[in-house]
Amino acid sequence: MANSTNITWHDSAVVKADRRQHLKQSSFILWFTGLSGSGKSTLSVALEQYLFQQGYLVYRLDGDNIRHGLNSNLGFSPDDRTENIRRIGEVSKLFVDAGVIAMTAFISPYQADRALVRAMVEPGEFVEIYVECSVEACEQRDTKGLYAKARRGEIKEFTGVSAPYEAPTQPEITIATEGKTVTECVQQLVTALETKGYLQRP
Amino acid sequence: MANSTNITWHDSAVVKADRRQHLKQSSFILWFTGLSGSGKSTLSVALEQYLFQQGYLVYRLDGDNIRHGLNSNLGFSPDDRTENIRRIGEVSKLFVDAGVIAMTAFISPYQADRALVRAMVEPGEFVEIYVECSVEACEQRDTKGLYAKARRGEIKEFTGVSAPYEAPTQPEITIATEGKTVTECVQQLVTALETKGYLQRP
Repeated sequence: MANSTNITWHDSAVVKADRRQHLKQSSFILWFTGLSGSGKSTLSVALEQYLFQQGYLVYRLDGDNIRHGLNSNLGFSPDDRTENIRRIGEVSKLFVDAGVIAMTAFISPYQADRALVRAMVEPGEFVEIYVECSVEACEQRDTKGLYAKARRGEIKEFTGVSAPYEAPTQPEITIATEGKTVTECVQQLVTALETKGYLQRP
Repeated sequence: MANSTNITWHDSAVVKADRRQHLKQSSFILWFTGLSGSGKSTLSVALEQYLFQQGYLVYRLDGDNIRHGLNSNLGFSPDDRTENIRRIGEVSKLFVDAGVIAMTAFISPYQADRALVRAMVEPGEFVEIYVECSVEACEQRDTKGLYAKARRGEIKEFTGVSAPYEAPTQPEITIATEGKTVTECVQQLVTALETKGYLQRP
């Protein structure tokens, strides 16, 4: 199999800039972090819908498509939690390289784990979104009944109850969800992303 | 954070079919398998270029972006090789879900590992491409000098020399690369993909 002189394609690999140009968007990671029940999942689903309808190609990683797939062989030990976030970061990086806006919605309670993901990608490609909500408010919602289980000791090392949550110190965006509607939160997120220039078309 | 009645987005999650429609393409995995030096990497790079220029969104997973990233904590033991392919399969599945045509170029010598990936996705989403080339021809090329090292015993369990390669029994596409130019091979691949209906626009 020799190289032909009669090639019918550009003789250069397709790179991130090419894919961004093709999709007419920049690509980056929207990394939601916050307590269980803070609104990460709800907000990321709603923001994904909004961005998709605006013509952006967005892909969301969450418990459903990660814990049952790529990370099905990980548990909840400290090492496994770190490996969980590391793999999610690496996959997000691949999506960014593919030109896609990656969104992730995981508690990701440790500053060091999030810093590791930030360091994987280029400056400006990691957008940390702190979904701020008090433990009390999250526990009051408790849509999945997880706080109740944690209080009864049926879940060990539950973030906010029996395990720490390290809030971001310098997140790109902070969204406080208490007392706000989903619409209000999404509008605030979109405004923040626009203001910071993430939604510009190349 | 209550649900608002004044939502400005469709109240349904974005799914694979939406993204395929948006990208005007189907999505699937083009899984190249074959010996070291058979032409997997060269062909996948060239095919990616061709498809991208035709307006398809394609993303290629290979040693460069996987072994140094997601799978940097895996070695070459049998278990690690299987885990390597499993993770690549799971990530490819995520790209298919994102509407992107995923391409992978790994030796992936074991039938069982490839069958595992095939089973992860829906029927028709796994396109096994057997890059056929004799060990002799691969060894003659030996662009990376790996066969020479393997013969000297400097690489243990080298596929085709000291470890088995289990050729696909029913690949979707077989491409024999000996005596052919890259252009000829890519044209054959494109014809096969078109004939099988993979490149139809929804």
